[in-house]
Amino acid sequence: MATRKSPLSLIRQHIRKLHAYVPGEQPRHRRLLKLNTNENPFPPAPEVLEAVRNAVDARLRLYPDPMSREVRGALAAFHGVAPENVVVGNGSDDILAMAIRAFVEPADSAAAQRNPSKGTIQYFDPSYSLYPVLGKIHKGQLRSVPLGDDFALPTVSELKAGGSWDFRAALSFITTPNAPSGRGYRTADLEAICRATRGVVLLDEAYAEFADENAMELATRYPNVLVSRTFSKAYSLCFQRVGYAVGHPELMGALDRIRDSYNVNGLAQVAAVTTLKHHHYYEQNFAVIRGEREKTSAALEKLGFRVYPSQTNFLLVEPPGMPAEQWFQQLREMGIVIRFFKTPGMDRFLRISIGSPSEMKRFMNGIRRILRESLQS
Amino acid sequence: MATRKSPLSLIRQHIRKLHAYVPGEQPRHRRLLKLNTNENPFPPAPEVLEAVRNAVDARLRLYPDPMSREVRGALAAFHGVAPENVVVGNGSDDILAMAIRAFVEPADSAAAQRNPSKGTIQYFDPSYSLYPVLGKIHKGQLRSVPLGDDFALPTVSELKAGGSWDFRAALSFITTPNAPSGRGYRTADLEAICRATRGVVLLDEAYAEFADENAMELATRYPNVLVSRTFSKAYSLCFQRVGYAVGHPELMGALDRIRDSYNVNGLAQVAAVTTLKHHHYYEQNFAVIRGEREKTSAALEKLGFRVYPSQTNFLLVEPPGMPAEQWFQQLREMGIVIRFFKTPGMDRFLRISIGSPSEMKRFMNGIRRILRESLQS
Repeated sequence: MATRKSPLSLIRQHIRKLHAYVPGEQPRHRRLLKLNTNENPFPPAPEVLEAVRNAVDARLRLYPDPMSREVRGALAAFHGVAPENVVVGNGSDDILAMAIRAFVEPADSAAAQRNPSKGTIQYFDPSYSLYPVLGKIHKGQLRSVPLGDDFALPTVSELKAGGSWDFRAALSFITTPNAPSGRGYRTADLEAICRATRGVVLLDEAYAEFADENAMELATRYPNVLVSRTFSKAYSLCFQRVGYAVGHPELMGALDRIRDSYNVNGLAQVAAVTTLKHHHYYEQNFAVIRGEREKTSAALEKLGFRVYPSQTNFLLVEPPGMPAEQWFQQLREMGIVIRFFKTPGMDRFLRISIGSPSEMKRFMNGIRRILRESLQS
Repeated sequence: MATRKSPLSLIRQHIRKLHAYVPGEQPRHRRLLKLNTNENPFPPAPEVLEAVRNAVDARLRLYPDPMSREVRGALAAFHGVAPENVVVGNGSDDILAMAIRAFVEPADSAAAQRNPSKGTIQYFDPSYSLYPVLGKIHKGQLRSVPLGDDFALPTVSELKAGGSWDFRAALSFITTPNAPSGRGYRTADLEAICRATRGVVLLDEAYAEFADENAMELATRYPNVLVSRTFSKAYSLCFQRVGYAVGHPELMGALDRIRDSYNVNGLAQVAAVTTLKHHHYYEQNFAVIRGEREKTSAALEKLGFRVYPSQTNFLLVEPPGMPAEQWFQQLREMGIVIRFFKTPGMDRFLRISIGSPSEMKRFMNGIRRILRESLQS
């Protein structure tokens, strides 16, 4: 291919300099124990697999329902809202990106020049690292607001005193429960922030199904609040890409007008609808995962790890004795892949997705072996 | 749900007024003959169905390859380019939207205020009606340039004389073969426009597999040209959402940095890779569809229809005797669904997707019955 002339000048300036979001690695070796991207250790319900398999026929030649009507209907019934309160996305990342496009003016637009809050995307630090990536793509004004000690949600008065929270920001993301810490937030505390904030607040509940409480009710009570959820984690459907948002019909209408008309593929729609029909299967999985989370947490603490309390399907820990990166490497050599964040401020932590009971046993054996070997040397 | 306060003011002004793209209807009644959205009448290759079915297992819980490496590798081999020349999308609509975001400044941005061409999205009229929809979502400056008589591609000197083509537009879409007319364009003529245009030219080849020639080589010879393709039409995979772009690595890198990390679902990746391994199956289908296209075209002309020459899997026609909308209605009453465009300038046309031989027989029988009945009345 001829590359005689660089077409760099054809690309928007702010995009030339972007770094892509770095997803956790997806190694495909079967022997590896993959505890790095918060996937669910259990397969989808047998009925879901069967329904998807049965849909793999001549219909693949046809467009899927562009409105995802069945999925939206099932989700509306599940959450006790109307289908107009629900928008479905190609994973919840699609929802997050749509929210930015619908509610935030690019920082160099006339509207944002007049009123900088109109161009502001704010989120707590640390939280889902995709927000600033999506914000930069859109040329939004990023505003990163520190969480309190041990990842606590600041109160409204703390936010007012701190001065870093923009109560008029066009869009505020709150990951709840928080990732990567796993810390859960009380609905009452979230509500106070939602009520005090004038712009759109998106409660990103990617892990809510593993928590003791969730804030879905706020999406139905506050016209500026929307809640996003995903089928990836709780419902073992990462591969299929289904996420959704619940909120006021006006906000949902805005997302709907800007989404790709066929954003949700047909087999994903089949999988999602069938999933909701077999919720009891998943509830059993949630209970097992929560149980393993607590067991692993206690076992790690006994071995000298600092373990942060988690309401998700993962644990954030500070390992003892040697740097987190070294733990990460030594586990990797044993075929156990967890998540290490090279980013400053996060590099003393390890994040461990909760696997099945036998996987967590293998993980703990690995941890113990490393500890034994480090004592001997 | 409480709706005490309208959150309209939270939505970006230009998005409040948007109309969503209206896709062709997707009726699900089995007896209907669906010739309205240019789907392929043939199912995917049996090997593709089998591969997808076999992939419906515990892996659904895992994230798909975020880089679509296997698909990109297979497409690169297929087109004789490098994987760096290929980006895969959630359907080719995803590619079109990404191109706008990567190359076009919103009209009210500082960059577009300084240089309006930087904010300009141009396309021929008529062509794919999604371009202005995507352009408005992005707040781009739309520039619609008329095609010549009978949907001919204007020459560069005509474009210069006409004054409506912006040779520095940030992004120019050319649907080739054209939709909704079906008219094919010569690569030499496209090349002349690509060479004379300084911005990015996206050749939207959604129907290229049904044409006598295609312009893929231009994507490898001009750093400002990219070609988009889709698995929907030629490869009977609408349901699964796979599209792609081929072009200079710098342009592809820009699309890659702004795309959703997991934009292409896992089963779609399996389907796409397997499709390319069984290309002979699809080539046979192309031949049948082209044959039916020519047969239907001749039969309709004999009955007094004006039929535009087509290089696609559909025909644009002007029906005789009564308004197009009336033909559309009467066919619908017989269970035959074709496409009627209510838009001004297009409302004398009907668009008919080419079905299987038996489907086209049923369609022609319907046409003849309407003609007979209108003679009797």
